[in-house]
Amino acid sequence: MSAPALSLVLIGFGHVGQRFVKLLSEVAERLDFEWRVVAIATRRHGSVIDPKGVDTAHALSLVEAGLSLDVLDAEPRERSGLDVIRQAARALADEAAESRVVCIESTVLDIDHGEPAVSHVRAALEAQMHVVTVNKGPAAFAYDGLESLADTMDRVFFFEGAVMDGIPVFNLVRETMPAVRIDGFRGVINTTANFILSALERGQAFDDAVREMQTRGIAEADPSLDVDGWDAAAKTAALVNVLMGSVITPHHVQRTGIREVTGLDARDAVARHKRIRLVASASRQGGKVKARVEPEMLDHQDPLAGLVDLNNALYLTTDLLGEIGIVQRGGSLTQTAYALLSDVARISQRLKEL
Amino acid sequence: MSAPALSLVLIGFGHVGQRFVKLLSEVAERLDFEWRVVAIATRRHGSVIDPKGVDTAHALSLVEAGLSLDVLDAEPRERSGLDVIRQAARALADEAAESRVVCIESTVLDIDHGEPAVSHVRAALEAQMHVVTVNKGPAAFAYDGLESLADTMDRVFFFEGAVMDGIPVFNLVRETMPAVRIDGFRGVINTTANFILSALERGQAFDDAVREMQTRGIAEADPSLDVDGWDAAAKTAALVNVLMGSVITPHHVQRTGIREVTGLDARDAVARHKRIRLVASASRQGGKVKARVEPEMLDHQDPLAGLVDLNNALYLTTDLLGEIGIVQRGGSLTQTAYALLSDVARISQRLKEL
Repeated sequence: MSAPALSLVLIGFGHVGQRFVKLLSEVAERLDFEWRVVAIATRRHGSVIDPKGVDTAHALSLVEAGLSLDVLDAEPRERSGLDVIRQAARALADEAAESRVVCIESTVLDIDHGEPAVSHVRAALEAQMHVVTVNKGPAAFAYDGLESLADTMDRVFFFEGAVMDGIPVFNLVRETMPAVRIDGFRGVINTTANFILSALERGQAFDDAVREMQTRGIAEADPSLDVDGWDAAAKTAALVNVLMGSVITPHHVQRTGIREVTGLDARDAVARHKRIRLVASASRQGGKVKARVEPEMLDHQDPLAGLVDLNNALYLTTDLLGEIGIVQRGGSLTQTAYALLSDVARISQRLKEL
Repeated sequence: MSAPALSLVLIGFGHVGQRFVKLLSEVAERLDFEWRVVAIATRRHGSVIDPKGVDTAHALSLVEAGLSLDVLDAEPRERSGLDVIRQAARALADEAAESRVVCIESTVLDIDHGEPAVSHVRAALEAQMHVVTVNKGPAAFAYDGLESLADTMDRVFFFEGAVMDGIPVFNLVRETMPAVRIDGFRGVINTTANFILSALERGQAFDDAVREMQTRGIAEADPSLDVDGWDAAAKTAALVNVLMGSVITPHHVQRTGIREVTGLDARDAVARHKRIRLVASASRQGGKVKARVEPEMLDHQDPLAGLVDLNNALYLTTDLLGEIGIVQRGGSLTQTAYALLSDVARISQRLKEL
């Protein structure tokens, strides 16, 4: 059958959203779907809705020049992300009813309540859009309700990019491990913290390492989400909610960051053939799931001990497959953007199978 | 919609085939399909065809007691695996036409030509059966032709168990990494060889380690397929054919086994913070794929160096996701049987989506 034509509503258009649009063009000949961007909402660069299709090259050049997208809109006005979703939904009602509209959510994580991402996802699903997000908030704070809503609306809610960028974690379990029960996991899943701990081992100062991560666009201007373990806790909550069928938020995760780890600690560990790593983990204990994020002193034979700098890994404990690990050797913006692309490709695949 | 009902034709009923049938029963409540076994072909315990369904508990007890399955057959006779496929195809022609018959191939690898597995797969596809195999031969010797045939017949040819048991490798790429190009790979993918090398490091003798693997049911009575690198070469050929779009056989893989590795070599490497591992690898060089299996001296920071005893891992080099690894921490018969189960589950999933 012919390739599905998807209309994309981009909520958030920062580094990830921009890279996603470029990536779609770069690998266009490998995709089995057609696409056009019909709306873009940004925090600081205005918004545009055009059901006939936004000129994305123009939109990219405007945002890169620090200018507003409003000039691309026939009736420019002040709009929140929610406003854009609702107006786009009205303008694209027929396509949404045909299951051909996808909301691409890439706003910044808010660790208090996961907003406004949770509301974005809910509004988009209610408007019969599929939703794909790289934001950890929706799966970490509201997975159960959003997944039920998606099910009711017969749309999908995907979030592969929430944990290890485009490295398959949720899709790994959902698509390749049918009938397997996940009993727990251990992982190194925060890149900035892992880079800092690796830098301390090399004798670099903590603050220097933070600045290097900021310069490379990996750590935020406020690095506390990474350094205090909040980012890892949000990922842990998402993993627990989705893979272990529990219902928690990042605030239920027992959490210790890496601020107390000194260079002396890190180098002393290495001298004893050990390594300190920020480990995220969960296990079932008497019917309840216990989740935690904390620096652990790892023996050199621990599979997490070998992860240096930008490497991440997640080891799942399963009933039928024993312990199985997925490893990310170095991260990049392309990998994060790819997470969105792979989720959209799976939506297209499902449409073709209808 | 209702759960698909699948008829299973088992060609090969050794440890893996038997464990598969038990596993289906053990996790029955988690499966989204119904199943019955309609035929079993064995090398030494006769065969049975019964379109109404074979009593698998009885079949298991017969084979475990060393008795023949012929007593279960209404018209028992001497049949090869190919005979069973063809006779079952005639008896189940309507179901096969409805895409509800799956041939489960679990015969032993023949490293010369991949037979009789290749012929089994071809005959089953020609009879409109789906095919699932744990045998490396078909993908290593004849992937291109068999995949084309499956495509023509509108049936699937799956072989997740050919490399790393039930740990997703082929499904990982096919189902979770759309539009990604695989440029190469490196892996430790032969369990017996890895156990022997680990044992040498501990001071155990080579032959002792081989015997331990045989006792644990991992190495064959003739361990040369493992020790001489043939098993790893067959897996390498399958990976190259399927993931890199080349057309090779195990005999095109540059191959050196581990017979020349001494305990002194292994312990000397460890003393220098290195490890000798049997590494399977492939890369593109000037438009051609270069594939090899050989013992390599690995630095301790190499992700393959940390794999001891029964651990396996495969690292894929990709264009969009960088380097991504999948790790198996310990193998078991259940994992191999699960490979068959996961492939059957995916067939059921596709039937539901029709």
